[in-house]
Amino acid sequence: MIGQYFQDVPRIIFNPDAEVDDTLCFKFYNATEVILGRPMEEWLRFSVCFWHSFRGTGADPFGLATIRRSWDDGSETVENYKRRLEAAFEFFTKLGVKYWTFHDRDISPEAATLEKTNRNLDEMTDLALTLQRQTGVRLLWNTCNLFAHPRYANGAATNPDAHVVAYAAAQVKKGLEIGRKLGAQNFVFWGGREGYNSLLNTDLDIEMSNMANFLRMALVYKKKIGFEGQLLIEPKPKEPTRHQYDYDAQTVASFLRQFNLQNDFKLNIEPNHTTLAGHGYEHDIVMASTLGMLGSIDANTGSPDLGWDTDQFPMDIRACTAVMVQVIRQDGIQPGGLNFDAKVRRESTNAKDLFIAHIGAMDSFARGLRNAAKIVEDGIMSKHLKARYVSFESGLGLKIATGQADLEECEEYVHQHGEPEAISGQQEHCEAIFNRYL
Amino acid sequence: MIGQYFQDVPRIIFNPDAEVDDTLCFKFYNATEVILGRPMEEWLRFSVCFWHSFRGTGADPFGLATIRRSWDDGSETVENYKRRLEAAFEFFTKLGVKYWTFHDRDISPEAATLEKTNRNLDEMTDLALTLQRQTGVRLLWNTCNLFAHPRYANGAATNPDAHVVAYAAAQVKKGLEIGRKLGAQNFVFWGGREGYNSLLNTDLDIEMSNMANFLRMALVYKKKIGFEGQLLIEPKPKEPTRHQYDYDAQTVASFLRQFNLQNDFKLNIEPNHTTLAGHGYEHDIVMASTLGMLGSIDANTGSPDLGWDTDQFPMDIRACTAVMVQVIRQDGIQPGGLNFDAKVRRESTNAKDLFIAHIGAMDSFARGLRNAAKIVEDGIMSKHLKARYVSFESGLGLKIATGQADLEECEEYVHQHGEPEAISGQQEHCEAIFNRYL
Amino acid sequence: MIGQYFQDVPRIIFNPDAEVDDTLCFKFYNATEVILGRPMEEWLRFSVCFWHSFRGTGADPFGLATIRRSWDDGSETVENYKRRLEAAFEFFTKLGVKYWTFHDRDISPEAATLEKTNRNLDEMTDLALTLQRQTGVRLLWNTCNLFAHPRYANGAATNPDAHVVAYAAAQVKKGLEIGRKLGAQNFVFWGGREGYNSLLNTDLDIEMSNMANFLRMALVYKKKIGFEGQLLIEPKPKEPTRHQYDYDAQTVASFLRQFNLQNDFKLNIEPNHTTLAGHGYEHDIVMASTLGMLGSIDANTGSPDLGWDTDQFPMDIRACTAVMVQVIRQDGIQPGGLNFDAKVRRESTNAKDLFIAHIGAMDSFARGLRNAAKIVEDGIMSKHLKARYVSFESGLGLKIATGQADLEECEEYVHQHGEPEAISGQQEHCEAIFNRYL
Amino acid sequence: MIGQYFQDVPRIIFNPDAEVDDTLCFKFYNATEVILGRPMEEWLRFSVCFWHSFRGTGADPFGLATIRRSWDDGSETVENYKRRLEAAFEFFTKLGVKYWTFHDRDISPEAATLEKTNRNLDEMTDLALTLQRQTGVRLLWNTCNLFAHPRYANGAATNPDAHVVAYAAAQVKKGLEIGRKLGAQNFVFWGGREGYNSLLNTDLDIEMSNMANFLRMALVYKKKIGFEGQLLIEPKPKEPTRHQYDYDAQTVASFLRQFNLQNDFKLNIEPNHTTLAGHGYEHDIVMASTLGMLGSIDANTGSPDLGWDTDQFPMDIRACTAVMVQVIRQDGIQPGGLNFDAKVRRESTNAKDLFIAHIGAMDSFARGLRNAAKIVEDGIMSKHLKARYVSFESGLGLKIATGQADLEECEEYVHQHGEPEAISGQQEHCEAIFNRYL
Repeated sequence: MIGQYFQDVPRIIFNPDAEVDDTLCFKFYNATEVILGRPMEEWLRFSVCFWHSFRGTGADPFGLATIRRSWDDGSETVENYKRRLEAAFEFFTKLGVKYWTFHDRDISPEAATLEKTNRNLDEMTDLALTLQRQTGVRLLWNTCNLFAHPRYANGAATNPDAHVVAYAAAQVKKGLEIGRKLGAQNFVFWGGREGYNSLLNTDLDIEMSNMANFLRMALVYKKKIGFEGQLLIEPKPKEPTRHQYDYDAQTVASFLRQFNLQNDFKLNIEPNHTTLAGHGYEHDIVMASTLGMLGSIDANTGSPDLGWDTDQFPMDIRACTAVMVQVIRQDGIQPGGLNFDAKVRRESTNAKDLFIAHIGAMDSFARGLRNAAKIVEDGIMSKHLKARYVSFESGLGLKIATGQADLEECEEYVHQHGEPEAISGQQEHCEAIFNRYL
Repeated sequence: MIGQYFQDVPRIIFNPDAEVDDTLCFKFYNATEVILGRPMEEWLRFSVCFWHSFRGTGADPFGLATIRRSWDDGSETVENYKRRLEAAFEFFTKLGVKYWTFHDRDISPEAATLEKTNRNLDEMTDLALTLQRQTGVRLLWNTCNLFAHPRYANGAATNPDAHVVAYAAAQVKKGLEIGRKLGAQNFVFWGGREGYNSLLNTDLDIEMSNMANFLRMALVYKKKIGFEGQLLIEPKPKEPTRHQYDYDAQTVASFLRQFNLQNDFKLNIEPNHTTLAGHGYEHDIVMASTLGMLGSIDANTGSPDLGWDTDQFPMDIRACTAVMVQVIRQDGIQPGGLNFDAKVRRESTNAKDLFIAHIGAMDSFARGLRNAAKIVEDGIMSKHLKARYVSFESGLGLKIATGQADLEECEEYVHQHGEPEAISGQQEHCEAIFNRYL
Repeated sequence: MIGQYFQDVPRIIFNPDAEVDDTLCFKFYNATEVILGRPMEEWLRFSVCFWHSFRGTGADPFGLATIRRSWDDGSETVENYKRRLEAAFEFFTKLGVKYWTFHDRDISPEAATLEKTNRNLDEMTDLALTLQRQTGVRLLWNTCNLFAHPRYANGAATNPDAHVVAYAAAQVKKGLEIGRKLGAQNFVFWGGREGYNSLLNTDLDIEMSNMANFLRMALVYKKKIGFEGQLLIEPKPKEPTRHQYDYDAQTVASFLRQFNLQNDFKLNIEPNHTTLAGHGYEHDIVMASTLGMLGSIDANTGSPDLGWDTDQFPMDIRACTAVMVQVIRQDGIQPGGLNFDAKVRRESTNAKDLFIAHIGAMDSFARGLRNAAKIVEDGIMSKHLKARYVSFESGLGLKIATGQADLEECEEYVHQHGEPEAISGQQEHCEAIFNRYL
Repeated sequence: MIGQYFQDVPRIIFNPDAEVDDTLCFKFYNATEVILGRPMEEWLRFSVCFWHSFRGTGADPFGLATIRRSWDDGSETVENYKRRLEAAFEFFTKLGVKYWTFHDRDISPEAATLEKTNRNLDEMTDLALTLQRQTGVRLLWNTCNLFAHPRYANGAATNPDAHVVAYAAAQVKKGLEIGRKLGAQNFVFWGGREGYNSLLNTDLDIEMSNMANFLRMALVYKKKIGFEGQLLIEPKPKEPTRHQYDYDAQTVASFLRQFNLQNDFKLNIEPNHTTLAGHGYEHDIVMASTLGMLGSIDANTGSPDLGWDTDQFPMDIRACTAVMVQVIRQDGIQPGGLNFDAKVRRESTNAKDLFIAHIGAMDSFARGLRNAAKIVEDGIMSKHLKARYVSFESGLGLKIATGQADLEECEEYVHQHGEPEAISGQQEHCEAIFNRYL
């Protein structure tokens, strides 16, 4: 039953004039306010992830669980799983988000056999379906956890043992079925153990080829059962393994093209993974969008001084603005969304911290959206950008840009026109303009 | 005239019993000794790069030139360029390497117009041809410097100004012509300024598309003039720009596939660039080789604790061994080679240091080759690796590996066979075996 | 003569209502506006650095100079040096900053002997003194360039050759004298080559001990000549050398304490150096301030995804706010200031870019100051912080905090009071509050 | 009872002629062989850590336990803890190491109250004492786990709640007592949660001052009870927290000096932590030794391309050689040792992998010792180093080195002697010599 676990938290409202330290209301996110022709909630399509927010315990490699929830007795019973799910939907509703995401094993206990495990999943997804209908909350995407169980220690799709690959395949079969059942708008593959820790015991050729075959099996089955969700791959460069095959946006694009899968998969970009790959925060979002492959976003952040995934709530308004500019430029992120693959800090042990963190992040992205909308509407920055490349709109530039030129005529052009003029890149000018919108 | 600039250094010989601090002879590299059916020099195909070793001055972002050479008066005269070239061929000969590499602007001064610049190049490459014939030293590859001149500040092939792109194209035209003239076995593109410093003033779509068109123009012209060298792209993730489009091996592969250029270009992998991209030392060499795209190697190293390109001489025997295992496994690196894209430290101001550094690196790779040959000959490591993947040689594993399986039969297999057995990855066992070969 | 080189740029004014793309005026920085009892210009004490802004050419390790200035003919003549200095003072004046900084070699050419070099310095500092008096611009600090000349390739104070150490000492002697002459408020030591590239050729013990002796000689001489400026050390972890002895704030503090110099030196913190040392942007500023050693700030930024010093203009308002909170908490940065140790990008080749970059950074810090003032005035964040540590204000906590407790009574306390209560760290709550001030 | 859990593994012997893939014997480590006047085991003083090797389960932030041991039923019973301890001593004995290390909570279960927890510890340390006597294995060091329990989420000595500080103090009191009981040669403090995740909720001043008071309480009690072990602090820059106060060797030295504790604490250096702090592998070992503060070594390694602590077994012979050169130069590491703070990979699930990993690491350090002994015996490298600094042995150099010089006489020296001669740093020469010893 919804409504019993967060009794001291009211439904979160938009209250822009609240006190500075009232962090339990929105000051910037106004779900139904129309920006550039759409309600904010449609541009942002916020989603709460079940794993961090309802399975996270605060444990880390150096410490035990710190977070205890009133609804969670820690047992592996179906009852406990059901209470958690009910608490989650209460949370989604009070917070006012319309989407959620989960791994199969988050919402349902693994049993002695795959058959029994799948029966648990059936029971739990029945409840999820009911809760979705009651609340109107929809499933942004689901995914299979192919990395936590010891059987996947050496990989799932890329495991050296075919038996394990088959197990992962069976799990994905069920995952696609429950995605269809719950109306998932997308289905995500995150290859946490698809990679290597040592090249000494790894055959890259077999592993990458098997990974492609695995994805193709999923694609065939998706079509067979009529599951309409978009398939997404989520890049991450490393952690838990030393090198993951889905390193970053372009690496995944390379892999998909190598195996002719580029038309059936898009990317779920997580900025914390992007920065771990050595790029700037918004790089993979812009790159994936440019490649026509940006499907969804795991909205979070890391600390740039740390070399591991901290999955913090995104609170940087500049970064949120840069992301939303790209989202607006590609006319929205649907059927994807902004999924908060983020966890409260291990020290943030109050249930209220869960609200405060999501609200803070939603407000940051709401500010990002408002800023981005102004940037796009004003058109000053895009006009400046367009002007920079104007030489490709006519003459030799147009021939180059359309693949009609050859080296000889380029040389001839230089013989005639000599040295090009020096033109400032005006980076600081652009930065100063961008800052005006923050 | 060859033989006058390094009069106090004799031709470097193989003397395995030399004193520990006699660093002016080879103790491991014995050019003509046959290993696995080939002379060492054929496996290793060492090359000296002209730019670091004959144009490097020791200047860095915080300091002026420290290195002065007897043959170099610092002037931009053709005479000075000729003396440098003669000194270089004396060096190659005394050191006993059979290949060299250069950028166009290394060997010839830029003049007031492209026409005059090209005439200088003609004169200098006449001399280079003569010196090649006299000494038997061959050109491993040449390349165009499309990054140092101020006109390329905002990129060459990806410059926002078509005039600059045309200039770069004209330069590449001449580069391909002199490559053919000098019998270059490869031609390299390193996109040092093909990237961005800020996304605020960059249109990724135009820039990457233009880069592809640029490469295609080069390809067409190469075929037109009958230049037989292999075209190579050298990945680097960043520096000088914040993000370079040729980030790493897989990023370049992605780009080439996107624009259907994958059959005409291979990769020139530099491990120092690989580590800057966040990978292990040999990662891109193994990855490129696995993708069938390893064309040549810029044999150098960085310090793993530094975030910029230090281009140090490769001295780590473990790393050299790992590289040579891959080279042997793909049956050699020809028509590529091991080009020492490495510079003596700015503090290593003696001319002798230039010999000592190359000798130390050549000895390190010679040890790497000797170790790798034993690894490959023994076959213990490859047998261990093959055994790890044996499940894909029959039954369901074979069907998965050949793309014949589907999710339903994988699920059925799990229903029948239950949980897979836990199998150790045995990384430490592999590491211990590898260490025995060092 | 002042006023002739930037004729197309008017004196920069405060115009908060200017158009978005008018980047040649201040929208936030209003020099004389009083904030928390002081004019903004007193809190911020902005300073322009001479080296980047008037000696920078845009050259980088992969490229030649891109930036040409009308007043600079590139010659090493005293006339050229004088024109540069006049242009600089015109720039300071039009921009409206009250401080500047320089290295000895920036403002005056090195000659054949130290004597002649020093005579050049005398002539140039005569002019500087005149210009200071004419404009009211003051010297925030000067420093000696002990890293660019080839003689310092192996270090200055830590050079293995005593002759070089003596040279550096002689240079510092003159540096202190001209600091006194020009009324420098501080004198900075940046040990760019005081470190190592390889431990194989380095004796850490000798080098660090010599560095201490060197600083002590400077201290003695400073007192002897009655130079009143504060001595500052600027930490940097690496680059140009692999490891620099002044790694970060605490490393310098350690060194100073080891050699009993901690009362005579403070720190000049540069955030770009801080991030290169693996810390968060404001870490060393907060740490140095906590240690009572924050003397001045080199206000700049890097890109967190890059591993080298990019010295960009600080444009991040969140970061500027965090810095200014600390500055206000320690009641200002005087006699230090915010020195823009930042350079326009190599592609920003217009003279106007120099203004735009400084204005953008000054506006960012002005916003930081305004935000920080509100944070400090409101007192909400500091009250929250104080409450978190309230247990140390009485009882056992007070004894612990004042060094009066022992292990036995701590154990006894636990026997009596049992397990402590879990208390949330409330990081997201703090972040959300902080964001309200941005 | 010892001898029942590893029945299929014999006592590990020295067998230099074993087959390449026989990784269950030593090929280089010969415990009693005398090198430079001491048996190898005395130079190396190998120690097995109890936590990784007998409490590690292979769990990581993305995965469940993979490692199951025959002697471990996973229960929190004292019986289970005793079986583990017996298995460990069987392992130590068969492997042939003479030292072990542990955290208090590794060897004994935490109970409902501190009193009961301490009674468990009494019972377990009784058994440990018996096993030590039976086997001759000694305790290199023990430590308190002040980071895993949820009470320490916000720090132990630096917790904002005095109650938690008291708890940690009580735990250290017991830790010192059992250290004395078991004859620990050292006692280690690793401040895993002594640091911050956000500066917004942290008072650095209080926290660092409390940390000093905490250490002083430990020091007082150690003396009071007559515990003779050396107190050690283990630096680590980050992870689990964003910034740890014991960042690296020099930061700890700074802290100790600030609070006048530098004579009572030494450092336990872990190279994996050193590389995470941005230094080269052996930097902190050499730095700590130079400062006279190198007390012990946690012998492990990370992968330089990863930004978190992987605690791999050290297998790099070059790195082991560099470490052992320093150990020999300071005449041994006693009363410290080489503690293998290293864990088998999560995929290395066989009990044999535990032996193979330790043997591989011991052989690597044995090779390091053999190489280092030759380097030290030959004296070529140290003679070269000494020669580099010879100018400080007389004249002005001697005055500088002994703090007798002043700036005036340095300037006078330069006026007389002019420009110093350029002297090569000869880094490549040193690297080539070093390589001869590998």
